[in-house]
Amino acid sequence: MNKRLPIKNLTLNYSRVEQTLTTFIRNEITKAKCTNAVFGLSGGIDSAVTAFLTTKSIGKENVCALLMPYETSNKQHIDDATNIAHKLNIPYQLLDISPMVNEFIALEPKMNVVRKGNIMARCRMIALYDTSAKHNALVIGTSNKTEILLGYGTIYGDSACGINPLGDLYKTQIWELAKHLGVPQKIINKVPTADLWQGQTDEGELGFMYHSVDLLLYYLIDKKKTLRELMQLGFTSSFIHTVKEKILRNKFKSRMPRIKKISHLQ
Amino acid sequence: MNKRLPIKNLTLNYSRVEQTLTTFIRNEITKAKCTNAVFGLSGGIDSAVTAFLTTKSIGKENVCALLMPYETSNKQHIDDATNIAHKLNIPYQLLDISPMVNEFIALEPKMNVVRKGNIMARCRMIALYDTSAKHNALVIGTSNKTEILLGYGTIYGDSACGINPLGDLYKTQIWELAKHLGVPQKIINKVPTADLWQGQTDEGELGFMYHSVDLLLYYLIDKKKTLRELMQLGFTSSFIHTVKEKILRNKFKSRMPRIKKISHLQ
Repeated sequence: MNKRLPIKNLTLNYSRVEQTLTTFIRNEITKAKCTNAVFGLSGGIDSAVTAFLTTKSIGKENVCALLMPYETSNKQHIDDATNIAHKLNIPYQLLDISPMVNEFIALEPKMNVVRKGNIMARCRMIALYDTSAKHNALVIGTSNKTEILLGYGTIYGDSACGINPLGDLYKTQIWELAKHLGVPQKIINKVPTADLWQGQTDEGELGFMYHSVDLLLYYLIDKKKTLRELMQLGFTSSFIHTVKEKILRNKFKSRMPRIKKISHLQ
Repeated sequence: MNKRLPIKNLTLNYSRVEQTLTTFIRNEITKAKCTNAVFGLSGGIDSAVTAFLTTKSIGKENVCALLMPYETSNKQHIDDATNIAHKLNIPYQLLDISPMVNEFIALEPKMNVVRKGNIMARCRMIALYDTSAKHNALVIGTSNKTEILLGYGTIYGDSACGINPLGDLYKTQIWELAKHLGVPQKIINKVPTADLWQGQTDEGELGFMYHSVDLLLYYLIDKKKTLRELMQLGFTSSFIHTVKEKILRNKFKSRMPRIKKISHLQ
Protein backbone atom coordinates (compact mmCIF):
# COMPACT_ATOMS: atom_id res chain seq x y z
CA MET A 1 0.00 0.00 0.00
CA ASN A 2 1.15 3.43 -0.92
CA LYS A 3 0.84 5.60 2.17
CA ARG A 4 1.89 8.87 0.57
CA LEU A 5 -0.98 9.23 -1.87
CA PRO A 6 -4.36 10.49 -0.77
CA ILE A 7 -7.21 8.19 -1.79
CA LYS A 8 -9.34 11.33 -2.11
CA ASN A 9 -7.98 11.72 -5.66
CA LEU A 10 -10.50 9.04 -6.51
CA THR A 11 -13.40 10.93 -4.94
CA LEU A 12 -16.33 11.67 -7.23
CA ASN A 13 -19.47 13.75 -6.88
CA TYR A 14 -21.76 10.83 -6.09
CA SER A 15 -25.00 12.77 -6.57
CA ARG A 16 -23.94 13.48 -10.14
CA VAL A 17 -22.79 9.89 -10.57
CA GLU A 18 -26.18 8.63 -9.39
CA GLN A 19 -28.04 10.99 -11.70
CA THR A 20 -25.83 10.17 -14.70
CA LEU A 21 -26.06 6.42 -14.22
CA THR A 22 -29.81 6.25 -13.56
CA THR A 23 -30.39 8.29 -16.73
CA PHE A 24 -27.95 6.05 -18.61
CA ILE A 25 -29.77 2.88 -17.51
CA ARG A 26 -33.19 4.29 -18.46
CA ASN A 27 -32.00 5.50 -21.88
CA GLU A 28 -30.24 2.27 -22.74
CA ILE A 29 -33.28 0.17 -21.85
CA THR A 30 -35.39 2.35 -24.16
CA LYS A 31 -32.79 2.23 -26.96
CA ALA A 32 -32.70 -1.58 -26.70
CA LYS A 33 -36.52 -1.56 -27.06
CA CYS A 34 -36.77 -3.36 -23.74
CA THR A 35 -39.32 -2.69 -21.01
CA ASN A 36 -37.58 -4.28 -18.07
CA ALA A 37 -34.22 -4.93 -16.48
CA VAL A 38 -32.76 -8.11 -15.02
CA PHE A 39 -29.58 -8.58 -13.00
CA GLY A 40 -27.96 -11.09 -10.72
CA LEU A 41 -28.06 -10.29 -7.01
CA SER A 42 -25.29 -12.05 -5.11
CA GLY A 43 -25.30 -10.32 -1.75
CA GLY A 44 -22.11 -8.47 -2.64
CA ILE A 45 -21.70 -4.74 -2.98
CA ASP A 46 -21.47 -4.47 -6.78
CA SER A 47 -24.79 -6.17 -7.44
CA ALA A 48 -26.37 -4.29 -4.50
CA VAL A 49 -25.33 -0.94 -6.00
CA THR A 50 -26.58 -2.13 -9.41
CA ALA A 51 -29.93 -3.05 -7.84
CA PHE A 52 -30.24 0.34 -6.13
CA LEU A 53 -29.35 2.27 -9.29
CA THR A 54 -31.60 0.22 -11.58
CA THR A 55 -34.57 0.41 -9.23
CA LYS A 56 -34.13 4.19 -8.86
CA SER A 57 -33.84 4.42 -12.64
CA ILE A 58 -36.88 2.51 -13.88
CA GLY A 59 -38.99 1.72 -10.82
CA LYS A 60 -39.37 -1.47 -8.84
CA GLU A 61 -42.16 -2.88 -11.00
CA ASN A 62 -39.82 -3.12 -14.03
CA VAL A 63 -36.96 -4.83 -12.30
CA CYS A 64 -36.21 -8.51 -11.78
CA ALA A 65 -33.40 -9.77 -9.54
CA LEU A 66 -32.05 -13.30 -9.88
CA LEU A 67 -30.46 -14.98 -6.87
CA MET A 68 -28.41 -17.83 -8.30
CA PRO A 69 -26.61 -19.81 -5.61
CA TYR A 70 -24.59 -22.95 -6.21
CA GLU A 71 -24.68 -25.72 -3.60
CA THR A 72 -21.38 -24.57 -2.08
CA SER A 73 -22.42 -20.89 -1.97
CA ASN A 74 -22.29 -19.24 1.44
CA LYS A 75 -25.87 -19.07 2.76
CA GLN A 76 -25.12 -15.70 4.33
CA HIS A 77 -24.77 -14.14 0.87
CA ILE A 78 -28.20 -15.40 -0.18
CA ASP A 79 -29.70 -13.95 3.00
CA ASP A 80 -27.99 -10.64 2.26
CA ALA A 81 -29.26 -10.67 -1.33
CA THR A 82 -32.79 -11.45 -0.14
CA ASN A 83 -32.61 -8.58 2.33
CA ILE A 84 -31.57 -6.16 -0.41
CA ALA A 85 -34.50 -7.29 -2.56
CA HIS A 86 -36.86 -6.81 0.40
CA LYS A 87 -35.39 -3.41 1.23
CA LEU A 88 -35.91 -2.24 -2.36
CA ASN A 89 -39.23 -4.08 -2.52
CA ILE A 90 -38.34 -5.57 -5.91
CA PRO A 91 -39.43 -8.94 -7.32
CA TYR A 92 -36.74 -11.59 -7.14
CA GLN A 93 -36.35 -15.21 -8.11
CA LEU A 94 -34.24 -17.87 -6.43
CA LEU A 95 -32.63 -20.13 -9.02
CA ASP A 96 -30.32 -22.89 -7.86
CA ILE A 97 -27.69 -23.41 -10.57
CA SER A 98 -26.37 -26.62 -9.02
CA PRO A 99 -28.18 -29.07 -11.35
CA MET A 100 -26.81 -27.40 -14.52
CA VAL A 101 -23.34 -26.81 -13.13
CA ASN A 102 -23.10 -30.38 -11.83
CA GLU A 103 -23.94 -31.81 -15.25
CA PHE A 104 -20.86 -30.02 -16.63
CA ILE A 105 -18.68 -31.04 -13.69
CA ALA A 106 -19.84 -34.64 -14.11
CA LEU A 107 -17.98 -34.70 -17.44
CA GLU A 108 -14.74 -34.48 -15.46
CA PRO A 109 -15.32 -34.53 -11.70
CA LYS A 110 -11.68 -33.80 -10.85
CA MET A 111 -11.51 -30.47 -12.70
CA ASN A 112 -9.95 -27.66 -10.66
CA VAL A 113 -11.89 -24.94 -8.81
CA VAL A 114 -11.13 -22.30 -11.43
CA ARG A 115 -12.80 -24.33 -14.18
CA LYS A 116 -15.74 -25.03 -11.86
CA GLY A 117 -16.01 -21.33 -11.02
CA ASN A 118 -16.07 -20.38 -14.69
CA ILE A 119 -18.83 -22.92 -15.35
CA MET A 120 -20.88 -21.38 -12.51
CA ALA A 121 -20.40 -17.85 -13.83
CA ARG A 122 -21.44 -18.95 -17.33
CA CYS A 123 -24.49 -20.90 -16.13
CA ARG A 124 -25.59 -17.71 -14.34
CA MET A 125 -25.21 -15.86 -17.64
CA ILE A 126 -27.49 -18.39 -19.35
CA ALA A 127 -30.13 -17.98 -16.63
CA LEU A 128 -29.93 -14.17 -16.85
CA TYR A 129 -30.20 -14.13 -20.64
CA ASP A 130 -33.06 -16.61 -20.67
CA THR A 131 -34.91 -14.47 -18.12
CA SER A 132 -34.19 -11.40 -20.23
CA ALA A 133 -35.80 -13.12 -23.23
CA LYS A 134 -38.85 -14.04 -21.16
CA HIS A 135 -39.44 -10.54 -19.75
CA ASN A 136 -38.12 -8.40 -22.63
CA ALA A 137 -35.53 -7.22 -20.15
CA LEU A 138 -32.06 -5.78 -20.64
CA VAL A 139 -29.34 -7.63 -18.73
CA ILE A 140 -27.63 -5.13 -16.42
CA GLY A 141 -24.03 -6.05 -15.69
CA THR A 142 -22.31 -5.62 -12.34
CA SER A 143 -18.59 -5.54 -13.24
CA ASN A 144 -16.54 -2.62 -11.93
CA LYS A 145 -13.58 -0.82 -13.51
CA THR A 146 -11.00 -2.54 -11.29
CA GLU A 147 -12.25 -6.01 -12.27
CA ILE A 148 -12.50 -5.11 -15.94
CA LEU A 149 -8.98 -3.67 -16.13
CA LEU A 150 -7.45 -6.57 -14.22
CA GLY A 151 -9.55 -9.13 -16.08
CA TYR A 152 -10.84 -10.46 -12.78
CA GLY A 153 -13.95 -12.15 -14.07
CA THR A 154 -15.16 -14.86 -16.43
CA ILE A 155 -15.38 -13.99 -20.09
CA TYR A 156 -18.91 -14.80 -21.36
CA GLY A 157 -19.84 -15.29 -17.69
CA ASP A 158 -20.24 -12.49 -15.16
CA SER A 159 -18.88 -9.97 -17.66
CA ALA A 160 -21.67 -10.77 -20.15
CA CYS A 161 -24.43 -8.15 -20.18
CA GLY A 162 -26.25 -5.55 -22.25
CA ILE A 163 -24.91 -2.53 -20.37
CA ASN A 164 -22.49 -2.13 -17.53
CA PRO A 165 -23.34 0.90 -15.35
CA LEU A 166 -20.47 0.33 -12.88
CA GLY A 167 -17.87 -0.17 -15.61
CA ASP A 168 -16.16 3.21 -15.07
CA LEU A 169 -16.11 3.01 -11.25
CA TYR A 170 -13.19 1.60 -9.29
CA LYS A 171 -14.11 -0.71 -6.41
CA THR A 172 -13.07 2.02 -3.95
CA GLN A 173 -15.53 4.38 -5.63
CA ILE A 174 -18.30 1.78 -5.49
CA TRP A 175 -17.94 1.66 -1.70
CA GLU A 176 -18.50 5.43 -1.65
CA LEU A 177 -21.40 5.31 -4.10
CA ALA A 178 -22.97 2.56 -1.99
CA LYS A 179 -22.91 4.84 1.09
CA HIS A 180 -24.44 7.66 -0.93
CA LEU A 181 -27.24 5.38 -2.22
CA GLY A 182 -28.08 4.01 1.23
CA VAL A 183 -26.89 0.45 0.69
CA PRO A 184 -26.89 -1.22 4.14
CA GLN A 185 -23.58 -0.78 5.96
CA LYS A 186 -23.41 -4.54 6.47
CA ILE A 187 -23.09 -5.06 2.71
CA ILE A 188 -20.50 -2.30 2.41
CA ASN A 189 -18.41 -3.87 5.16
CA LYS A 190 -18.31 -7.36 3.65
CA VAL A 191 -15.02 -8.79 2.43
CA PRO A 192 -15.30 -8.87 -1.39
CA THR A 193 -15.54 -12.39 -2.79
CA ALA A 194 -16.84 -14.07 -5.91
CA ASP A 195 -17.73 -17.00 -3.61
CA LEU A 196 -16.88 -19.52 -6.32
CA TRP A 197 -15.15 -21.70 -3.75
CA GLN A 198 -14.88 -21.76 0.02
CA GLY A 199 -12.59 -19.15 1.51
CA GLN A 200 -12.12 -17.28 -1.78
CA THR A 201 -11.61 -13.53 -1.42
CA ASP A 202 -10.92 -11.08 -4.25
CA GLU A 203 -7.96 -9.51 -2.51
CA GLY A 204 -6.45 -12.87 -1.55
CA GLU A 205 -6.72 -14.11 -5.11
CA LEU A 206 -5.51 -10.88 -6.72
CA GLY A 207 -2.62 -10.60 -4.30
CA PHE A 208 -3.18 -6.97 -3.32
CA MET A 209 -5.73 -4.68 -1.67
CA TYR A 210 -8.35 -2.79 -3.70
CA HIS A 211 -7.28 0.52 -2.16
CA SER A 212 -3.71 0.05 -3.40
CA VAL A 213 -4.49 -1.24 -6.85
CA ASP A 214 -7.23 1.32 -7.48
CA LEU A 215 -4.76 4.11 -6.77
CA LEU A 216 -2.19 2.57 -9.08
CA LEU A 217 -4.77 1.99 -11.84
CA TYR A 218 -5.97 5.59 -11.46
CA TYR A 219 -2.46 6.98 -12.04
CA LEU A 220 -1.53 4.39 -14.66
CA ILE A 221 -4.72 4.39 -16.76
CA ASP A 222 -6.60 7.63 -16.04
CA LYS A 223 -3.56 9.86 -15.52
CA LYS A 224 -1.31 7.98 -17.98
CA LYS A 225 1.74 8.25 -15.71
CA THR A 226 5.03 6.72 -16.84
CA LEU A 227 6.87 4.01 -14.92
CA ARG A 228 9.30 6.61 -13.57
CA GLU A 229 6.46 8.89 -12.44
CA LEU A 230 4.64 6.00 -10.79
CA MET A 231 7.77 5.07 -8.86
CA GLN A 232 8.22 8.70 -7.84
CA LEU A 233 4.66 8.56 -6.52
CA GLY A 234 5.77 5.69 -4.31
CA PHE A 235 4.61 2.55 -6.10
CA THR A 236 7.15 -0.27 -6.16
CA SER A 237 8.35 -1.51 -9.51
CA SER A 238 7.28 -5.08 -8.73
CA PHE A 239 3.72 -3.96 -7.92
CA ILE A 240 3.55 -1.88 -11.12
CA HIS A 241 4.96 -4.77 -13.14
CA THR A 242 2.50 -7.31 -11.68
CA VAL A 243 -0.49 -5.07 -12.38
CA LYS A 244 0.65 -4.15 -15.91
CA GLU A 245 1.15 -7.84 -16.69
CA LYS A 246 -2.34 -8.66 -15.46
CA ILE A 247 -3.87 -5.90 -17.58
CA LEU A 248 -2.01 -7.06 -20.68
CA ARG A 249 -2.73 -10.76 -20.18
CA ASN A 250 -6.45 -10.17 -19.72
CA LYS A 251 -7.04 -7.56 -22.40
CA PHE A 252 -8.71 -10.18 -24.60
CA LYS A 253 -11.65 -10.25 -22.20
CA SER A 254 -12.53 -6.65 -23.04
CA ARG A 255 -12.64 -6.81 -26.80
CA MET A 256 -14.63 -8.59 -29.49
CA PRO A 257 -13.11 -11.74 -31.05
CA ARG A 258 -10.43 -10.77 -33.56
CA ILE A 259 -11.34 -11.02 -37.25
CA LYS A 260 -8.82 -10.89 -40.10
CA LYS A 261 -9.88 -8.54 -42.89
CA ILE A 262 -9.60 -10.40 -46.19
CA SER A 263 -12.09 -8.68 -48.51
CA HIS A 264 -9.21 -7.01 -50.41
CA LEU A 265 -7.80 -10.41 -51.48
CA GLN A 266 -9.40 -10.41 -54.91
CA MET B 1 -32.99 -12.45 -55.87
CA ASN B 2 -31.29 -9.85 -57.96
CA LYS B 3 -30.67 -11.41 -61.35
CA ARG B 4 -28.86 -8.45 -62.89
CA LEU B 5 -25.82 -8.49 -60.62
CA PRO B 6 -22.99 -10.93 -61.13
CA ILE B 7 -22.14 -12.88 -57.98
CA LYS B 8 -18.53 -12.89 -59.21
CA ASN B 9 -18.11 -9.47 -57.60
CA LEU B 10 -17.78 -11.46 -54.41
CA THR B 11 -15.05 -13.69 -55.80
CA LEU B 12 -11.78 -13.74 -53.86
CA ASN B 13 -8.39 -15.24 -54.48
CA TYR B 14 -8.91 -18.29 -52.29
CA SER B 15 -5.25 -19.34 -52.26
CA ARG B 16 -4.39 -15.99 -50.72
CA VAL B 17 -7.37 -16.24 -48.35
CA GLU B 18 -6.18 -19.67 -47.20
CA GLN B 19 -2.63 -18.44 -46.68
CA THR B 20 -3.73 -15.30 -44.85
CA LEU B 21 -6.14 -17.11 -42.54
CA THR B 22 -3.85 -20.02 -41.67
CA THR B 23 -1.11 -17.51 -40.78
CA PHE B 24 -3.66 -15.48 -38.79
CA ILE B 25 -4.76 -18.53 -36.78
CA ARG B 26 -1.17 -19.56 -36.02
CA ASN B 27 -0.13 -16.05 -34.96
CA GLU B 28 -3.16 -15.50 -32.76
CA ILE B 29 -2.66 -18.81 -30.95
CA THR B 30 0.94 -17.80 -30.24
CA LYS B 31 -0.06 -14.28 -29.13
CA ALA B 32 -2.64 -15.77 -26.75
CA LYS B 33 0.14 -17.95 -25.30
CA CYS B 34 -1.91 -21.03 -26.19
CA THR B 35 -0.56 -24.26 -27.61
CA ASN B 36 -3.73 -25.72 -29.05
CA ALA B 37 -7.00 -24.89 -30.75
CA VAL B 38 -10.52 -26.07 -30.01
CA PHE B 39 -13.68 -25.59 -32.05
CA GLY B 40 -17.16 -27.01 -32.38
CA LEU B 41 -17.75 -29.30 -35.34
CA SER B 42 -21.42 -29.44 -36.30
CA GLY B 43 -21.38 -31.12 -39.68
CA GLY B 44 -22.13 -27.80 -41.35
CA ILE B 45 -19.92 -25.95 -43.80
CA ASP B 46 -18.68 -23.14 -41.55
CA SER B 47 -17.24 -25.41 -38.89
CA ALA B 48 -15.89 -27.75 -41.59
CA VAL B 49 -13.99 -24.87 -43.21
CA THR B 50 -12.78 -23.78 -39.76
CA ALA B 51 -11.55 -27.32 -39.10
CA PHE B 52 -9.69 -27.47 -42.43
CA LEU B 53 -8.07 -24.06 -41.93
CA THR B 54 -7.09 -24.68 -38.31
CA THR B 55 -5.63 -28.11 -39.05
CA LYS B 56 -3.64 -26.72 -41.99
CA SER B 57 -2.49 -23.88 -39.75
CA ILE B 58 -1.20 -25.67 -36.66
CA GLY B 59 -1.21 -29.39 -37.46
CA LYS B 60 -3.61 -32.13 -36.50
CA GLU B 61 -1.89 -32.94 -33.21
CA ASN B 62 -2.69 -29.48 -31.80
CA VAL B 63 -6.36 -29.44 -32.69
CA CYS B 64 -9.41 -30.64 -30.78
CA ALA B 65 -12.90 -30.80 -32.31
CA LEU B 66 -15.98 -30.98 -30.12
CA LEU B 67 -19.13 -32.60 -31.48
CA MET B 68 -21.95 -31.35 -29.26
CA PRO B 69 -25.32 -32.73 -30.27
CA TYR B 70 -28.55 -32.16 -28.40
CA GLU B 71 -31.09 -34.98 -28.21
CA THR B 72 -33.14 -33.49 -31.05
CA SER B 73 -30.11 -32.91 -33.28
CA ASN B 74 -30.21 -34.54 -36.68
CA LYS B 75 -28.03 -37.68 -36.53
CA GLN B 76 -26.88 -37.06 -40.10
CA HIS B 77 -25.03 -33.91 -38.99
CA ILE B 78 -23.10 -35.86 -36.35
CA ASP B 79 -22.15 -38.45 -38.95
CA ASP B 80 -20.99 -35.67 -41.25
CA ALA B 81 -18.97 -34.05 -38.44
CA THR B 82 -17.38 -37.40 -37.57
CA ASN B 83 -16.47 -37.93 -41.22
CA ILE B 84 -14.76 -34.54 -41.38
CA ALA B 85 -12.75 -35.36 -38.24
CA HIS B 86 -11.74 -38.70 -39.77
CA LYS B 87 -10.86 -37.12 -43.11
CA LEU B 88 -8.60 -34.58 -41.35
CA ASN B 89 -7.41 -37.27 -38.95
CA ILE B 90 -7.90 -34.92 -35.98
CA PRO B 91 -8.86 -35.88 -32.39
CA TYR B 92 -12.50 -35.22 -31.58
CA GLN B 93 -14.77 -35.63 -28.62
CA LEU B 94 -18.48 -36.36 -28.61
CA LEU B 95 -20.21 -34.38 -25.87
CA ASP B 96 -23.98 -34.69 -25.51
CA ILE B 97 -25.27 -31.35 -24.21
CA SER B 98 -28.76 -32.71 -23.47
CA PRO B 99 -28.30 -33.17 -19.69
CA MET B 100 -27.20 -29.54 -19.16
CA VAL B 101 -29.68 -28.04 -21.58
CA ASN B 102 -32.54 -30.06 -20.12
CA GLU B 103 -31.79 -28.78 -16.60
CA PHE B 104 -32.35 -25.24 -17.89
CA ILE B 105 -35.46 -26.19 -19.84
CA ALA B 106 -36.84 -27.95 -16.75
CA LEU B 107 -37.12 -24.52 -15.09
CA GLU B 108 -39.86 -23.71 -17.60
CA PRO B 109 -40.68 -26.65 -19.86
CA LYS B 110 -43.01 -24.64 -22.09
CA MET B 111 -40.41 -22.09 -23.19
CA ASN B 112 -40.35 -21.46 -26.93
CA VAL B 113 -37.86 -22.97 -29.38
CA VAL B 114 -35.85 -19.77 -29.68
CA ARG B 115 -35.11 -19.71 -25.95
CA LYS B 116 -34.25 -23.41 -26.08
CA GLY B 117 -31.96 -22.82 -29.06
CA ASN B 118 -30.13 -20.03 -27.24
CA ILE B 119 -29.61 -22.26 -24.21
CA MET B 120 -28.12 -24.94 -26.49
CA ALA B 121 -25.76 -22.46 -28.15
CA ARG B 122 -24.62 -21.16 -24.75
CA CYS B 123 -24.12 -24.63 -23.24
CA ARG B 124 -21.90 -25.40 -26.24
CA MET B 125 -19.92 -22.24 -25.45
CA ILE B 126 -19.40 -23.47 -21.87
CA ALA B 127 -18.16 -26.86 -23.10
CA LEU B 128 -15.78 -25.21 -25.61
CA TYR B 129 -14.36 -22.80 -23.04
CA ASP B 130 -13.95 -25.49 -20.43
CA THR B 131 -12.11 -27.64 -22.97
CA SER B 132 -9.97 -24.65 -23.89
CA ALA B 133 -8.98 -24.26 -20.23
CA LYS B 134 -8.11 -27.93 -19.99
CA HIS B 135 -5.90 -28.02 -23.10
CA ASN B 136 -4.53 -24.45 -23.07
CA ALA B 137 -6.38 -24.05 -26.35
CA LEU B 138 -7.72 -20.98 -28.12
CA VAL B 139 -11.42 -21.20 -28.99
CA ILE B 140 -11.74 -20.78 -32.76
CA GLY B 141 -15.10 -19.29 -33.77
CA THR B 142 -17.08 -20.32 -36.83
CA SER B 143 -19.32 -17.30 -37.49
CA ASN B 144 -19.30 -15.83 -40.98
CA LYS B 145 -19.70 -12.21 -42.11
CA THR B 146 -23.31 -12.68 -43.23
CA GLU B 147 -24.36 -14.05 -39.84
CA ILE B 148 -22.42 -11.40 -37.93
CA LEU B 149 -23.90 -8.50 -39.91
CA LEU B 150 -27.45 -9.85 -39.70
CA GLY B 151 -27.04 -10.85 -36.06
CA TYR B 152 -28.04 -14.39 -36.94
CA GLY B 153 -26.54 -16.13 -33.94
CA THR B 154 -26.68 -16.28 -30.15
CA ILE B 155 -24.79 -13.62 -28.24
CA TYR B 156 -22.44 -15.31 -25.72
CA GLY B 157 -23.29 -18.56 -27.52
CA ASP B 158 -22.04 -19.53 -30.97
CA SER B 159 -20.55 -16.06 -31.45
CA ALA B 160 -18.32 -16.45 -28.37
CA CYS B 161 -14.71 -17.26 -29.24
CA GLY B 162 -11.14 -16.08 -29.06
CA ILE B 163 -10.72 -15.41 -32.78
CA ASN B 164 -13.06 -15.66 -35.71
CA PRO B 165 -11.21 -16.59 -38.92
CA LEU B 166 -14.37 -16.64 -41.09
CA GLY B 167 -15.64 -13.30 -39.80
CA ASP B 168 -14.84 -11.36 -42.99
CA LEU B 169 -16.22 -13.99 -45.38
CA TYR B 170 -19.79 -13.96 -46.66
CA LYS B 171 -21.54 -17.33 -46.71
CA THR B 172 -21.29 -17.36 -50.51
CA GLN B 173 -17.52 -16.93 -50.21
CA ILE B 174 -17.30 -19.74 -47.66
CA TRP B 175 -18.85 -22.12 -50.19
CA GLU B 176 -16.06 -21.18 -52.61
CA LEU B 177 -13.32 -21.40 -49.98
CA ALA B 178 -14.67 -24.83 -49.00
CA LYS B 179 -14.24 -26.06 -52.60
CA HIS B 180 -10.71 -24.67 -52.70
CA LEU B 181 -9.81 -26.40 -49.41
CA GLY B 182 -11.21 -29.77 -50.48
CA VAL B 183 -14.15 -29.92 -48.09
CA PRO B 184 -16.31 -32.86 -49.24
CA GLN B 185 -18.94 -31.81 -51.80
CA LYS B 186 -21.63 -33.41 -49.63
CA ILE B 187 -20.96 -30.83 -46.90
CA ILE B 188 -20.91 -27.97 -49.40
CA ASN B 189 -24.26 -29.08 -50.83
CA LYS B 190 -26.09 -29.24 -47.48
CA VAL B 191 -28.91 -26.82 -46.77
CA PRO B 192 -27.54 -24.43 -44.11
CA THR B 193 -29.18 -24.89 -40.71
CA ALA B 194 -28.35 -24.22 -37.07
CA ASP B 195 -30.35 -27.41 -36.34
CA LEU B 196 -31.70 -25.91 -33.11
CA TRP B 197 -35.09 -27.34 -33.88
CA GLN B 198 -36.55 -29.75 -36.43
CA GLY B 199 -36.95 -28.35 -39.91
CA GLN B 200 -35.02 -25.16 -39.16
CA THR B 201 -33.09 -23.71 -42.10
CA ASP B 202 -31.11 -20.48 -42.11
CA GLU B 203 -32.72 -19.19 -45.27
CA GLY B 204 -36.23 -20.10 -44.10
CA GLU B 205 -35.69 -18.28 -40.84
CA LEU B 206 -33.97 -15.25 -42.34
CA GLY B 207 -36.58 -14.95 -45.06
CA PHE B 208 -34.16 -14.68 -47.98
CA MET B 209 -31.44 -16.61 -49.81
CA TYR B 210 -27.76 -16.24 -48.92
CA HIS B 211 -26.88 -15.41 -52.53
CA SER B 212 -29.26 -12.45 -52.53
CA VAL B 213 -28.46 -11.06 -49.13
CA ASP B 214 -24.69 -11.47 -49.57
CA LEU B 215 -24.86 -9.37 -52.74
CA LEU B 216 -26.91 -6.71 -50.97
CA LEU B 217 -24.59 -6.70 -47.95
CA TYR B 218 -21.57 -6.42 -50.25
CA TYR B 219 -22.94 -3.30 -51.94
CA LEU B 220 -24.40 -1.84 -48.73
CA ILE B 221 -21.51 -2.46 -46.34
CA ASP B 222 -18.35 -2.99 -48.40
CA LYS B 223 -19.21 -0.61 -51.23
CA LYS B 224 -21.19 1.85 -49.05
CA LYS B 225 -23.87 2.34 -51.72
CA THR B 226 -26.79 4.67 -50.99
CA LEU B 227 -30.43 3.56 -51.00
CA ARG B 228 -30.88 5.13 -54.44
CA GLU B 229 -27.81 3.38 -55.83
CA LEU B 230 -28.92 0.05 -54.36
CA MET B 231 -32.31 0.42 -56.02
CA GLN B 232 -30.63 1.31 -59.30
CA LEU B 233 -28.66 -1.91 -58.92
CA GLY B 234 -31.99 -3.76 -58.79
CA PHE B 235 -32.61 -4.39 -55.09
CA THR B 236 -36.18 -3.75 -53.97
CA SER B 237 -36.73 -1.13 -51.29
CA SER B 238 -38.52 -3.61 -49.03
CA PHE B 239 -35.58 -6.05 -49.19
CA ILE B 240 -33.11 -3.23 -48.46
CA HIS B 241 -35.28 -2.00 -45.60
CA THR B 242 -35.65 -5.47 -44.03
CA VAL B 243 -31.92 -6.11 -44.16
CA LYS B 244 -31.00 -2.66 -42.81
CA GLU B 245 -33.46 -3.12 -39.96
CA LYS B 246 -31.94 -6.49 -39.10
CA ILE B 247 -28.43 -5.04 -39.08
CA LEU B 248 -29.48 -2.16 -36.84
CA ARG B 249 -31.51 -4.28 -34.42
CA ASN B 250 -28.68 -6.78 -33.94
CA LYS B 251 -25.74 -4.40 -33.76
CA PHE B 252 -25.56 -4.91 -29.99
CA LYS B 253 -24.34 -8.45 -30.58
CA SER B 254 -21.15 -7.16 -32.19
CA ARG B 255 -19.96 -4.72 -29.56
CA MET B 256 -18.85 -4.80 -25.94
CA PRO B 257 -21.43 -3.91 -23.25
CA ARG B 258 -21.87 -0.14 -23.11
CA ILE B 259 -20.20 1.68 -20.19
CA LYS B 260 -20.98 5.28 -19.21
CA LYS B 261 -17.85 7.32 -18.63
CA ILE B 262 -18.17 9.09 -15.27
CA SER B 263 -14.59 9.69 -14.10
CA HIS B 264 -14.92 13.42 -14.90
CA LEU B 265 -17.74 13.83 -12.33
CA GLN B 266 -15.53 15.13 -9.54
